[in-house]
Amino acid sequence: MQTIEDGRDPQQNVEEIKPFSIEQVFDTKTVPPWKEQLTTRAFVVSLVLSVLFSIIVMKLSLTTGVIPSLNVGAGLLGFFFVKTWTKLLQKSGMLKHDFTRQENTVIQTCVVASSGIAFSGGFGSYLFAMSDAIAKQSKEINKEQNIKNLSLGWIIGFLFVVSFLGLFSVVPLRKIMVIDYKLVYPSGTATAHLINSFHTPQGAKLAKKQIKELNKFFSFSFLWAFFQWFFTGGDGCGFSKFPTFGLKAFENRFYFDFSATYVGVGMICPYIINISLLVGAILSWGIMWPLIESTKGHWYPANLPSSSLHGLQGYKIFIAIAMILGDGLYNFVKVLSRTLFGLFQQFCNKKTGDLPISGNSANASPPISYDDQRRTQLFLKDQIPTWVAIGGYVVIATISTVILPNIFHQLKWYHILVIYIVAPALAFCNAYGCGLTDWSLASTYGKLAIFIIGAWVGASNGGVLAGLAACGVMMNIVATASDLMQDFKTGYLTLASPRSMFVSQAIGTAMGCVISPCVFWLFYKAFPNLGEPGSEYPAPYSLIYRNMSILGVEGFSTLPKHCLQLCYASFAAAILVNSIRDVVGKKWAKYIPLPMAMAIPFYLGGYFAIDMCVGSFILFVWGQINKAKADAFGPAVASGLICGDGIWTLPSSILALAGLQPPICMKFLSRKTNSRVDKLFGS
Amino acid sequence: MQTIEDGRDPQQNVEEIKPFSIEQVFDTKTVPPWKEQLTTRAFVVSLVLSVLFSIIVMKLSLTTGVIPSLNVGAGLLGFFFVKTWTKLLQKSGMLKHDFTRQENTVIQTCVVASSGIAFSGGFGSYLFAMSDAIAKQSKEINKEQNIKNLSLGWIIGFLFVVSFLGLFSVVPLRKIMVIDYKLVYPSGTATAHLINSFHTPQGAKLAKKQIKELNKFFSFSFLWAFFQWFFTGGDGCGFSKFPTFGLKAFENRFYFDFSATYVGVGMICPYIINISLLVGAILSWGIMWPLIESTKGHWYPANLPSSSLHGLQGYKIFIAIAMILGDGLYNFVKVLSRTLFGLFQQFCNKKTGDLPISGNSANASPPISYDDQRRTQLFLKDQIPTWVAIGGYVVIATISTVILPNIFHQLKWYHILVIYIVAPALAFCNAYGCGLTDWSLASTYGKLAIFIIGAWVGASNGGVLAGLAACGVMMNIVATASDLMQDFKTGYLTLASPRSMFVSQAIGTAMGCVISPCVFWLFYKAFPNLGEPGSEYPAPYSLIYRNMSILGVEGFSTLPKHCLQLCYASFAAAILVNSIRDVVGKKWAKYIPLPMAMAIPFYLGGYFAIDMCVGSFILFVWGQINKAKADAFGPAVASGLICGDGIWTLPSSILALAGLQPPICMKFLSRKTNSRVDKLFGS
Repeated sequence: MQTIEDGRDPQQNVEEIKPFSIEQVFDTKTVPPWKEQLTTRAFVVSLVLSVLFSIIVMKLSLTTGVIPSLNVGAGLLGFFFVKTWTKLLQKSGMLKHDFTRQENTVIQTCVVASSGIAFSGGFGSYLFAMSDAIAKQSKEINKEQNIKNLSLGWIIGFLFVVSFLGLFSVVPLRKIMVIDYKLVYPSGTATAHLINSFHTPQGAKLAKKQIKELNKFFSFSFLWAFFQWFFTGGDGCGFSKFPTFGLKAFENRFYFDFSATYVGVGMICPYIINISLLVGAILSWGIMWPLIESTKGHWYPANLPSSSLHGLQGYKIFIAIAMILGDGLYNFVKVLSRTLFGLFQQFCNKKTGDLPISGNSANASPPISYDDQRRTQLFLKDQIPTWVAIGGYVVIATISTVILPNIFHQLKWYHILVIYIVAPALAFCNAYGCGLTDWSLASTYGKLAIFIIGAWVGASNGGVLAGLAACGVMMNIVATASDLMQDFKTGYLTLASPRSMFVSQAIGTAMGCVISPCVFWLFYKAFPNLGEPGSEYPAPYSLIYRNMSILGVEGFSTLPKHCLQLCYASFAAAILVNSIRDVVGKKWAKYIPLPMAMAIPFYLGGYFAIDMCVGSFILFVWGQINKAKADAFGPAVASGLICGDGIWTLPSSILALAGLQPPICMKFLSRKTNSRVDKLFGS
Repeated sequence: MQTIEDGRDPQQNVEEIKPFSIEQVFDTKTVPPWKEQLTTRAFVVSLVLSVLFSIIVMKLSLTTGVIPSLNVGAGLLGFFFVKTWTKLLQKSGMLKHDFTRQENTVIQTCVVASSGIAFSGGFGSYLFAMSDAIAKQSKEINKEQNIKNLSLGWIIGFLFVVSFLGLFSVVPLRKIMVIDYKLVYPSGTATAHLINSFHTPQGAKLAKKQIKELNKFFSFSFLWAFFQWFFTGGDGCGFSKFPTFGLKAFENRFYFDFSATYVGVGMICPYIINISLLVGAILSWGIMWPLIESTKGHWYPANLPSSSLHGLQGYKIFIAIAMILGDGLYNFVKVLSRTLFGLFQQFCNKKTGDLPISGNSANASPPISYDDQRRTQLFLKDQIPTWVAIGGYVVIATISTVILPNIFHQLKWYHILVIYIVAPALAFCNAYGCGLTDWSLASTYGKLAIFIIGAWVGASNGGVLAGLAACGVMMNIVATASDLMQDFKTGYLTLASPRSMFVSQAIGTAMGCVISPCVFWLFYKAFPNLGEPGSEYPAPYSLIYRNMSILGVEGFSTLPKHCLQLCYASFAAAILVNSIRDVVGKKWAKYIPLPMAMAIPFYLGGYFAIDMCVGSFILFVWGQINKAKADAFGPAVASGLICGDGIWTLPSSILALAGLQPPICMKFLSRKTNSRVDKLFGS
């Protein structure tokens, strides 16, 4: 790992080693003040795109439940709309303001926030799981008190009181995450590169070349995704299910899934992250799960369905959560103590100067580049005072604590209070993990809430419904937090003000709280058999969530054998590994994997870790052949790969909406199964 | 097509435009006289490899019937064996002669000739089709007179009297094919590049770089073939059946089959060849066959099996043969008339000078490169007098005409005489077509013989057996002819003498005439159920050949409707297109496709044409980016691709011999079929 030996910190942004400065190219363009970044036209365009994206997300969550990241699409379409508009105005001589990249970022942020609600609102998961339609299917515990039928009114109200908390919960940490920790946020970074490339002034030679590379790999990635689509005509079909290392490895989720997105993400993420992911995948899917599975019938009943939390799935989810919590809490406490120590020092010495929170940036030794200087300067210019964030959080939490028990009688004020006390820490964990690996684990935290609150309330007091409601509260906070931080990163790289990001995200969230329920209501009224298995809109995750909640009310005692002990162990291991990383110093720390990154494949499997390692490997080989070129064009290539694949989600969603399904299934069968199939078809 | 506008002749060898000279690098090494190229150790190694390769070919022809080209493997293993041997001797100080590339080529030639008999001897096709075991299965016309049971004695005798004719039939044409027509012979060229690379003296910088490229793509191609293997666990499985352009196009054999070999071949072949192949594929599989198929039930009975020569398959085979014959005869007559004209001129003017046969090399306008000069000089140094060739052919043909009717009583001397009169023209056609496109169509000419001789002899006089025997005679001549010419090309590029090539091929053929029947006898005695469907060695082509012969005896009248007219038309079209090519002059001729190349996909389908066009496309784009690099490294990359895939046939054959089958089947199903499969498996 040559680049690590070069003294590159694992958490260091790839921008820094670039000899070429993007911001010098942009120096001819002035950055408008934050209020001017929030133009009316930006929000008009955002509204239109929000509706479009909400329909797409809603449709996907009601059909397969798999929602792709829409950051890139939002950035691109935002640019396209406003650019066309401004060009028209320019021709008619009526253009007042140029279209800036900051404005573009504002649109992107607003649309992502708004359409994010269509996912975190749980219309295909926890929210719909409360309804009669789903309760009928699960048979167990479907008394009156565990069912709440849907109505537009309370859904909008519910979303309004829970969706804004995520914003306030992580705002004070933006400087630590983006500047001090230099977290990568691959999607955010890629979107920023795309937006920068759209707005690059004429005449910059290297920038032009970078844009050319970006476009080349963008097209490649798009066409590749398009090509792949044709072969996905059925479950388990297509390149994304390619058993690259054999069927046995595939069963344990070790395969290369040909995803250009994750190869690109791997190129942007530091080597140690990708290695950590791979180590985590090998530890869990390669060693731990097979070992635990061998105790089937002994540690847990053998006849459970594979998705049951009482079986192997339980180990996977809870051990992963324990490790993530361990790492997250360690870092949360570390940041908090440093902050308090900084404040204390400032108080003692009465020194004026740097913001106390940046106490740990003292050891940021490498000379800072022009890009970083300029970006940091603008990022720190428009502050959002910490008291606003804390005040806002407390006020909204209070309102929410009062209102929520009126919507869900099963949920008491103290349940909500506990959630709101714990939430900021989890929001931090999620934003931090997302910054490292691009995975937002909002639904995982939601499942945690289902389990804890459900068990607390108990089956007889409507625990199933309480669990689902708690899941919604938690998911909204945690998802919004990572979205916001992702957008802060995009804003940082495009010189958009944190204030305009925050306002845009808030406006987007408000839009989403109205648009998403309305879109859902359209589907709900238009398709009366919504949620029925086998129908056009089966909403598969709704039933899964309800079943999880039913399991949840039975409490910790129903967890499979030794699961809790293993959770404690992994929680402790996460803290231990982090302590070691801090104790041994930078020189050795870069060889020690990060528990947060290790935990993510615990639940998901190793396939995306392999994609990302392929990305790392490509970058490594490229760096060996031509270091300067790899440094200059690596991020552009990676962004192209991520964005092309990302944009393909738009046409593919439209194809799905139009009911056009791919014609071919590329299937992988063992030789035995294949000969059975051949016999059945008489060929 | 930039390179065509550069004035590059379609039939011009890629060597010529290379600014770098291989032979200058080799100038330090003396070329041994032709007799010294034929060392004892070379033939000992050849013998060992011949046995090995014969076993592999035999096994493959008795199981699937698909035989890969073994040129490359022979070159490589020959090098490996002798190099190890000479290194050992060198260490012990007993080395008398260095290992030269000419010796390497001799081994390669000998092994290919010898193991070629295992294929053209028809042990998995026409020869075994004569036996009782196969006759039992086909039910029709299996009277005593149409069955000949196998015995080692007559098989060896038969092979000896028919296998040497091919050698003599094309020897006089070697200069026209290799030097004047500059035919490419992709496999031969690739093998020569490989052999040259093994023997390149130290210190040549560009040569080293070329070898590096060759090795890189060799490894890639080998690993790619290895990787592909895992997914071929069943019929219709794997990358080679990838419906790249959809299932409908796949049914009409339009798809990219991911074969590194043909992509490499496409990089070596001139653009016009690849375009001709593609045009031919579109004309036949895109237009003609679907049109003819739409007359099903009208032009030919609808209930025939797809392999029946009375149906669509009949059109495919006979129209292709007609076009190949048209082109081949046109060129044969052209060459013959020029030769005679040259002889006549020489006779009139009593001039001494160039060989008369090279009359048409006068219009070889571009300045000749050092490589070509040197190669041509050595290629022309050791002549094989034309009278030896003609005399040899006449003598062996006479012996053969006497002996063959004693082996097959059904075959009369006049049948054999007719075959031997026609054979040289067909041998020329095959050698010429193989030089253009790397496809040897020996079995197609064999089928022609089955049909004509079978019909002539008639069902009642044992026409079925006579047809099969005639097939053997024809296939051996035609296959050996193209092999020999391929080897002459390899010899030309490695400065091996044509005489040593000829002798080596003759010795190899003699070896093969003994080794192959013995190997077959081993299988025949070891597996008593040889040839039974469903057994381990079903020899699928044996039954197909017998059935073809049965159809053949029924005569031309049983051909499907309008087939004969279409054959006349395509024969005439081939001659017309060739005439136009000659009339319009070089400037326009290079835009007119070659009928010979167009006819090959008529029967096989367009998939390999697409591979080859991909190769062309890669070279074209590479040339646009960096012309000098593409010219210098193109052939090395292409050779690497061809050789890597070629070598993989060795381990894959060994895996097949060991009974190890690939574990996974990558299958392509339509969405409908897939949902049926899913239902059947209850998933």
